[in-house]
Amino acid sequence: MTENSLSQISLTKATIASTVEIQAINEKGESIDVQISGEHPLTLYFDKREILTLMTLGAQPEALALGWLRNQKLVNSPDEIAAIHVDWETESVAVTSKLLKETGVSIWEKTDKSSIFDKKTTTSGCGQGTVFGDLMTQIDATTLSHAYPLSDEVLYALMDKVRKYESIYKQAGAVHGCALCSNSGDNRGDILLFVEDVGRHNAVDTIAGQMWLQGLEGADKIFYTTGRLTSEMVIKCALMGIPTLVSRSGLTQMGYEIAQKLNMTMLGRCQGKHYLLYTGFERFHQQPSTPTAHTTQLA
Amino acid sequence: MTENSLSQISLTKATIASTVEIQAINEKGESIDVQISGEHPLTLYFDKREILTLMTLGAQPEALALGWLRNQKLVNSPDEIAAIHVDWETESVAVTSKLLKETGVSIWEKTDKSSIFDKKTTTSGCGQGTVFGDLMTQIDATTLSHAYPLSDEVLYALMDKVRKYESIYKQAGAVHGCALCSNSGDNRGDILLFVEDVGRHNAVDTIAGQMWLQGLEGADKIFYTTGRLTSEMVIKCALMGIPTLVSRSGLTQMGYEIAQKLNMTMLGRCQGKHYLLYTGFERFHQQPSTPTAHTTQLA
Repeated sequence: MTENSLSQISLTKATIASTVEIQAINEKGESIDVQISGEHPLTLYFDKREILTLMTLGAQPEALALGWLRNQKLVNSPDEIAAIHVDWETESVAVTSKLLKETGVSIWEKTDKSSIFDKKTTTSGCGQGTVFGDLMTQIDATTLSHAYPLSDEVLYALMDKVRKYESIYKQAGAVHGCALCSNSGDNRGDILLFVEDVGRHNAVDTIAGQMWLQGLEGADKIFYTTGRLTSEMVIKCALMGIPTLVSRSGLTQMGYEIAQKLNMTMLGRCQGKHYLLYTGFERFHQQPSTPTAHTTQLA
Repeated sequence: MTENSLSQISLTKATIASTVEIQAINEKGESIDVQISGEHPLTLYFDKREILTLMTLGAQPEALALGWLRNQKLVNSPDEIAAIHVDWETESVAVTSKLLKETGVSIWEKTDKSSIFDKKTTTSGCGQGTVFGDLMTQIDATTLSHAYPLSDEVLYALMDKVRKYESIYKQAGAVHGCALCSNSGDNRGDILLFVEDVGRHNAVDTIAGQMWLQGLEGADKIFYTTGRLTSEMVIKCALMGIPTLVSRSGLTQMGYEIAQKLNMTMLGRCQGKHYLLYTGFERFHQQPSTPTAHTTQLA
């Protein structure tokens, strides 16, 4: 990957309004104005082939499209991409490969990428997600860095910063937020990227796209999500090379099993001064505290 | 649909454990036992064709498979089905049509159902759901009954009952709950079906399957969900013929627009004695209250 992929890709910046106002009636019979999250269909075309329609808040549609293609392993590097053009008039995003632009031959003709459409898995993260290809097979080839452990001090600082960022959620609700945070250098604990979307996986995919556009690596980062720690969340985090995953929600069995397999450092139920460390214990440094008791509580 | 579809379909009852126990470390450094939601892959075969793999809690896998096929319009009536057999050893559910059982010819050979695999839409309810076929085109043909209005009195009773039902959520978190409630007769406000799953859409699909298995119609029912009021939620509710949709969460723009189009009665932010009525006002009866002011609050 090049240092500055952004400048090499022809990009629109087609952000649209994140909230709309509607009228509702409350329990007192009062007519009130309420802000709801915007939600727009965006059909993704890759080298002129229609892939699927995403429903999105529409804040960063170019990064969403790129990140979706990245997380589905349809693109292996931002260097493969020539252009990402969003047109809200036609509710579409057209992604063009350098191969097509430079040779006139699409990736569908030159590669075996079409075969990945054969395998569908519906994930439960949130319902029924689509994963083309077999992401699970990628996991065995993935090793996460141990060079950047997380301390509870940095965790608390991060949670505090995330709380201040959640603008659309506070305004309109019904969105999921994701953040990419630094875990090294002077800006350790800082939020580098923050994305909200009506779909949690859209938010993750948008972060993945932005990481490529901005040339950011995963090893010294922390991934924060407001959503549950599901298998798909863990897998996507691993594919971005991020060793540490943090959520204010709980986890599912598959998310737990995959994080264990990957030896990812995963924390959930992070709220206020509370958290639970589920996996990857050796990458987490805790301040010395009172000696341990053995108790039971909710995941 | 017959009165007693249940007896005509050969069914397994392959419920599996809903929670598993893991060990975590809390912020005090204590090692604690936590319960997490079970999550199991279940590959759906319909007339020997592999359709997809669902990730599920596994509480009612037969109803989930039937409801998934119903909500994707792959099956039009439970009378079309001869058998639903779940085998957790192979993590699979095999659904067999009467056509195949009685004539040896599968529905794939006799109908044009294969064509619905051509169209994929990724919904944002929760991320990236799969909807085969174009459910949106069904909406124009849907008319929801006005025979059973909802009163705030029944709404409050229902919310109270739902709270007591949420067992797995209370125990392990990370699941969504859905309930089918009566809105007629002596048991008005009662919960008829309650389903929790790691995926919200799994919970909805399981209710749809149970409605067919138990011969329940939608017109005099209320659908309750813990999740957000997304387009997919509204569409599925409408396809089940249920005119009233209630959530303790908020709504998305597409959910709102489709509910408006359907004139569905939709309420969100239902917690304690609070709620917001978004659409389908004439199907909702409110107790006389103090006169109205015009204020602004979150959706």
